[in-house]
Amino acid sequence: MMTPSIPTPSLVLDAVIVRRNIDAMARYTAEHQLGLRPHSKTHKSTKLGQMQRDAGAIGLTVAKAGEAAIMAEVADDLLLAYPIVDEHRAQRIAELAGKVTVRVALDSTLAAEVMAHAAQAVGGEIGILVDRDVGFHRTGVQSAEEALAIAQLVERTKGVRLDGIMFYPGHLARKEMAEEAYVGALRGVDAILEETVEGWRKNGLEARIISGGTSPTALDSHLIKHQTEIRPGTYIFQDMNGVHGGYASIDDCAARVHATVVSTAVPGQVVIDAGSKVLTSDRCGPAPESGHGLIVEYPDAKIAKLSEEHGQVDVGKSSDVPKVGERVTIIPNHICPCVNLQDAIWWCDEGHPPERVPVEARGMVV
Amino acid sequence: MMTPSIPTPSLVLDAVIVRRNIDAMARYTAEHQLGLRPHSKTHKSTKLGQMQRDAGAIGLTVAKAGEAAIMAEVADDLLLAYPIVDEHRAQRIAELAGKVTVRVALDSTLAAEVMAHAAQAVGGEIGILVDRDVGFHRTGVQSAEEALAIAQLVERTKGVRLDGIMFYPGHLARKEMAEEAYVGALRGVDAILEETVEGWRKNGLEARIISGGTSPTALDSHLIKHQTEIRPGTYIFQDMNGVHGGYASIDDCAARVHATVVSTAVPGQVVIDAGSKVLTSDRCGPAPESGHGLIVEYPDAKIAKLSEEHGQVDVGKSSDVPKVGERVTIIPNHICPCVNLQDAIWWCDEGHPPERVPVEARGMVV
Repeated sequence: MMTPSIPTPSLVLDAVIVRRNIDAMARYTAEHQLGLRPHSKTHKSTKLGQMQRDAGAIGLTVAKAGEAAIMAEVADDLLLAYPIVDEHRAQRIAELAGKVTVRVALDSTLAAEVMAHAAQAVGGEIGILVDRDVGFHRTGVQSAEEALAIAQLVERTKGVRLDGIMFYPGHLARKEMAEEAYVGALRGVDAILEETVEGWRKNGLEARIISGGTSPTALDSHLIKHQTEIRPGTYIFQDMNGVHGGYASIDDCAARVHATVVSTAVPGQVVIDAGSKVLTSDRCGPAPESGHGLIVEYPDAKIAKLSEEHGQVDVGKSSDVPKVGERVTIIPNHICPCVNLQDAIWWCDEGHPPERVPVEARGMVV
Repeated sequence: MMTPSIPTPSLVLDAVIVRRNIDAMARYTAEHQLGLRPHSKTHKSTKLGQMQRDAGAIGLTVAKAGEAAIMAEVADDLLLAYPIVDEHRAQRIAELAGKVTVRVALDSTLAAEVMAHAAQAVGGEIGILVDRDVGFHRTGVQSAEEALAIAQLVERTKGVRLDGIMFYPGHLARKEMAEEAYVGALRGVDAILEETVEGWRKNGLEARIISGGTSPTALDSHLIKHQTEIRPGTYIFQDMNGVHGGYASIDDCAARVHATVVSTAVPGQVVIDAGSKVLTSDRCGPAPESGHGLIVEYPDAKIAKLSEEHGQVDVGKSSDVPKVGERVTIIPNHICPCVNLQDAIWWCDEGHPPERVPVEARGMVV
C-alpha cells in the first residue's frame, strides 16, 4: 500500500490486516473460554484499544501509570502488569482505581505495602495479582512459598484485595524448540501454576484470575490449563520478530514504515530516511543478522546499519535497486518500541483517505 | 545528584556540567578560529540551543525540517545536514528560508533540483553545501568530479546558491587507532577536501563554508585545516559512547536517567524501571558488551538486558546491591536517541528547584 500523500518517514497501518488480527485472537480466546486482555503497549492508542474491546476483550493491559490513565478512557478493567514500588505511581493508580477496575501485579512485600498505603489514603481498594516467575527470570517470585507469603500479606492488609496470579512465559518460542520440548515447557509452566494455586488453596486463598500469555505463545494458550486470561500485545500489528520467530507471516504484518531513499551516492548502498529514531535499534531476536527490518519491495536488500536518521541499505545482493527519491515500505523488527517513537500512526482503510491516529500513550514511562 | 521529587524514570541534567561542556567547546573553536554550529539533534530543546548561541555558536545544525522549524526560534542561521529529495520537506524548508538563513547539504542532482524548485515556488533562495564522503561511507559524493558536477548545477540554477561543502568524519575515533594513524587519517580528510576545493577553484567556484566535525573528533578539528566550521552534537551532554571512546570522562556526562529498582525477586539480578523505551536499545559502540549504560552508584552492576520497560541488572559481580524501591542514576550509552524518547528533561541547577525543559523537537522525523 503506497500513499504518497503521507510524508516520510511515517508508520502506516493496513486496516484490513489490523481487523483480521484482532478478530483472529478474539475468536481463539472465545473458543477456548479464555479472557483476552490485550497489552496496549503495542499500539498505545485509544482507537485500537477500543477496537479490541469491541471485539470482546475483557479489558486491557498496561505497563505504566500514564498508560493506565489513557487506556481508562476506553476500558473499565485494566491490569498494570508491572510492579509499583514508589508512592508517586501508587497514588496515581489508587486515584484511577476510584473510576475503573485496576489490578496491579507485583513480586515484593514492599510493592504490596506501597499499593495498600496509597489505596488507604483515598479510601479505595486495589486488586493484586502476585507475579510468579515461570522461567523467563525477569520479575516474579521464585517459589510457591514466596507467592503464598505475599498473598497472605495482601489478604490481611486493608486497601489491597487478593485477586490471583500473573506470569509471563517470555522464554518460550515454538520455533527455537522441538515440538515435544515446547509442549513439555508449556506443561512445565502449568505445573508451576498448579503448585502455586495449591499452596494458596491449602491456606484458604483463591486465585480467581491467572493471567498469562504473550504473542509468541498466544495461540498455544490452551495448553496452559490454569490460566484464565492472556495478555498478547504484538499480535495486533505483528513484526519481523514474529515472522522470523515462526508465529506470524508477512501478510499478518499490519504496520509498515514508509520511507524515502534520500541518497544513493555510495556504491552498493542506498540510504533511507528512517534511522534508529524511527525504527529503533532493536535487532530481530530470532534473526539478529537479518538487518533492521524488511524492505517489502526489495526483500534482498538489507538495512545493514542505522544512524539516528539514516538507514544504510546494503543493495549488493539485490537484483533490483531503488532510485533516489523512491518510496519504500519497511516491516520493523519490533513494532512496540517503533510505535512509541511516533506521535501518530496512519490508519489506511480501503475507500477512505488516510486517517492520522494519535499515539496518546507514547512516552508514558512513569 | 538525587532529586526524589522527580518521578522515575526521568532524564535529569546537571546544569553545571552542561554549562562547562558548552563553554569548553566554545573556547576551543574560538581559539582555532572555527565556527561552531552545534547539532541540535542531541538536545532537541530551544533552551539548550539558546545557551549554545549565547556562548558564541554561529548557528545550529538540524537533520529534519521539523527540527529546523523549532530551532529557528532561537537561531537565525541553520544548516540542515541531511539530503532533501521530496517536495513536502523541500517546501517546508523553502518557506522557512524566507525567515532565517537555511542551508541544505545534499549529494544528488535530484536533491538540488527539488530544493531549487521549492525555492523558486516561493521566490526565495536556499544555500547549498555539497556533501562529500570522506570515508564514513554513509552519504556524500565519491569524487571531486561529482562534487564539481553538483556545484556547477547549483551555480547555474535559480533558487539555489552554492555556499560550500559538508563532510562527516564519522569513521574516525582516536582511541581505536594509533596516534600516528589517527593524525594521518585527519590529514587524509584534509587532502580530500583540498582536491574538491581545488576542482571548484579551477572552475571559478568557491567553497565559502566547509562544514565538518563530530563530537569524537571535535577537539582535533584544527588538524583538518580546510574546515571553516564544526557541528558536534553529543558534546553538550556526553555519554558512555564518549567515555568508552576515550573522548569524554564520567564527569563530563551531564545527562543521567534516574530510575527505581522495582523488583529483586530473581536471584543475582535487580530490575529497574528503565527499559528500551527510556534508554533505547543502542549498544555502546566502543564497548558493545558493557551493557545498556552505567549505573553510577553501582559501577560493577551490569544492565545486561532490556525489555521495553524493564532493565535487568546483573548484580552477580557487584559487592553492593541496590534494594527494591531504591533510586539509581544511569549514564546512557547514546544520549541523542535517549533524549528523543523523553517529552521533557529535568534541568537541575544548584540552589534552584528542578525545572522541566520540554524536548520540543522530539520525534520530528520529517
